Amino acid sequence: MGSSQKQWKVIQGGIASPTGFYASGVKAGIKYTDKFDVALIKSEVPASAAGVFTRNVVKAHPLLLTEKHIRDGKAQAIIVNSGNANACMGEIGEKAAMQMAEVTAGELKIPVTNVLVSSTGVIGQEMPMDKVIPGIKEAAQAVKRIAGEAKEDIKDEYSHQAALAIMTTDTTVKEMAFELNCSQGPIRLGIMAKGSGMIHPNMGTMLCFITTDAKVEPAMLQSLLKEAADESFNMVTVDGDTSTNDMVVVLANGLSGIEPKEEEWGLFSKMLIEACCSMAIAIARDGEGASKFLEAKVKGARSPEDARKIARSICSSNLVKSAMYGEDANWGRILAAAGYSGAYFNPDKADIFLNGLQVAALGQGLKFPEDEALTRLKNKDILIEIHLQDGNSQACAWGCDLTHKYIDINADYRT
Amino acid sequence: MGSSQKQWKVIQGGIASPTGFYASGVKAGIKYTDKFDVALIKSEVPASAAGVFTRNVVKAHPLLLTEKHIRDGKAQAIIVNSGNANACMGEIGEKAAMQMAEVTAGELKIPVTNVLVSSTGVIGQEMPMDKVIPGIKEAAQAVKRIAGEAKEDIKDEYSHQAALAIMTTDTTVKEMAFELNCSQGPIRLGIMAKGSGMIHPNMGTMLCFITTDAKVEPAMLQSLLKEAADESFNMVTVDGDTSTNDMVVVLANGLSGIEPKEEEWGLFSKMLIEACCSMAIAIARDGEGASKFLEAKVKGARSPEDARKIARSICSSNLVKSAMYGEDANWGRILAAAGYSGAYFNPDKADIFLNGLQVAALGQGLKFPEDEALTRLKNKDILIEIHLQDGNSQACAWGCDLTHKYIDINADYRT
Repeated sequence: MGSSQKQWKVIQGGIASPTGFYASGVKAGIKYTDKFDVALIKSEVPASAAGVFTRNVVKAHPLLLTEKHIRDGKAQAIIVNSGNANACMGEIGEKAAMQMAEVTAGELKIPVTNVLVSSTGVIGQEMPMDKVIPGIKEAAQAVKRIAGEAKEDIKDEYSHQAALAIMTTDTTVKEMAFELNCSQGPIRLGIMAKGSGMIHPNMGTMLCFITTDAKVEPAMLQSLLKEAADESFNMVTVDGDTSTNDMVVVLANGLSGIEPKEEEWGLFSKMLIEACCSMAIAIARDGEGASKFLEAKVKGARSPEDARKIARSICSSNLVKSAMYGEDANWGRILAAAGYSGAYFNPDKADIFLNGLQVAALGQGLKFPEDEALTRLKNKDILIEIHLQDGNSQACAWGCDLTHKYIDINADYRT
Repeated sequence: MGSSQKQWKVIQGGIASPTGFYASGVKAGIKYTDKFDVALIKSEVPASAAGVFTRNVVKAHPLLLTEKHIRDGKAQAIIVNSGNANACMGEIGEKAAMQMAEVTAGELKIPVTNVLVSSTGVIGQEMPMDKVIPGIKEAAQAVKRIAGEAKEDIKDEYSHQAALAIMTTDTTVKEMAFELNCSQGPIRLGIMAKGSGMIHPNMGTMLCFITTDAKVEPAMLQSLLKEAADESFNMVTVDGDTSTNDMVVVLANGLSGIEPKEEEWGLFSKMLIEACCSMAIAIARDGEGASKFLEAKVKGARSPEDARKIARSICSSNLVKSAMYGEDANWGRILAAAGYSGAYFNPDKADIFLNGLQVAALGQGLKFPEDEALTRLKNKDILIEIHLQDGNSQACAWGCDLTHKYIDINADYRT
């Protein structure tokens, strides 16, 4: 990720940093009384919109509505709540999602089809609309208030509350802002996400919202987002194994007045990938109950798809995850997880490294010093490298260890 | 499984119950000093042989040798050890596997190509041949000794030790014997297995050995075994996600003198399926750290393959497994796991039951009494039923809950 000659930088702020975007978060009391749980993102003007959505056959009601509203490549606002997934609720759920869009549209005086809706939380419980509706109204008031003022720090404070409002079991807030200097001037990108309960096949909901003031046509935006999601979120959780509510949505309102020139699209794309990877890594790092962050780096695979399969297989193996929790240099499990990934490679050429210490060469174990291995695995961040020497493709996947705390969290989540 | 008019019965004994089979287990001290760890199965005459093997790209040395030796559809002995997987060891590993076959062949005075070899244990450690070879010799002596006597109870005691010798973290010994009354007389089937560290994607090694005194041609035997494995072991662990050492092998020596008649093959096949399912269920029940046994029963799927995918997806979801551990009737996770299985169905027609209590209807939650749900989930056995009402196919998968103990076992397995 990134290079020494990057032409973009990370700036202060979040989802509302690009020109003409505003965001707010409020405490509506959906599940807890004192937690931000409704977030609103608004663009001054209708924006190009693109999204990638869960491949789960079971889709939440707000997600189905958002897929419909985004089909024309336009949107102007996103309303999000945590504390209730609004999934598997039949007609009641459909109505609740639609009502969230309608109330938002009414407050902001924009067409309802330009409102996207997103929810995260428990599946199969009725959305408490008596709390959600006042929440949306309050969030809309807040957005209108900041749109009136021009102070960046207040804008940031409000958008920070939006980032807080989408969190569920997350322990860290996930938001960033970037600025790219194009020849005609700067364009900005803001991003916020929530994860936790992460790592396929666990289907904890992953949400990410992105804003930019660059001028981007919807089709172009969709293609850029797809590529970025493949390299980032699809290497953590948005895979074949996804929740009913997963979505990544980007709005581009063009209010910087700048459309990147042909040679600048590559930079914009790279910035978008970096933004998405930063969120994906933050999500992995904050995996439910995680005590360690895992990065699996595959080199020398036969194809990019093979490299990704192998990297993901390693990061999602319960045996690898448990071994890393136990700080046990069990490289056999790593090789075996690579072996059942569905990708072909020659195991007799595989080298394996744990935080830089080579533990296997040409598919066989090395006599490495166990105390040295233990020292390296005591690190909170574990880099698992596997060099297949069987091709030229590479990939990274991110995950976390499997801990007692994960089980504590998930053995009794619903109640 | 089974029917009210079954023409076979479970009998006393195990792998050596069919005519002309002998088995023994000895303590060779491979990993522990006081554990049975070398097992030998021998047929009086060369037998038809068939096997299904791991699909992992990384294959253990003994497994590669066994694949070679079984290619001609004949075998007469199986030598098995626990405590060391003999995987990922390069030439040393190849030689060790070959030497195990050679020593066995020499002791039993049979061709080395008629010996199958199987190992289970830690990957990437050198096989202690100084312990293994005397172990094999002792096991062969024991087999010859029982072949001399004719006492069934001693035969059973020795074959029980063989079943003990293939165990690793298993907490229960897994062996059974069956007898089918054909028109010409009885034929017998013996089976023993080891599991634990089970459930894909966890790739704990699964081994199963089957003997029968029926007359069966190798091609027929292979086809019967494949079908039985698909309905049993492939619904627990031998799937895309497998260990480097997984194998299921069957020997048919024909010494009953009976070849089932055309109409009796169906019964033989059903008996074999029941035997394999019994072992598969025993393996699931004894999953590493398991406190509960899970059975996922899918009805009304569009195809048998879809039904299997959905059943397996439910049983292997960490979130479902954790919820069952926590006795939490979190049906949303069950529906979501079905939804990401890769099989298509209409979620709005799905009914879900937990130990008989309906918790969701037509894809939506029911207001079920929580205390009643808790009472039912306190059971050690949990039956998760999902009726899709979307076709006529059904399937069962078996698994276990995900517990603190699983993590204790796997955080530090290697050392």
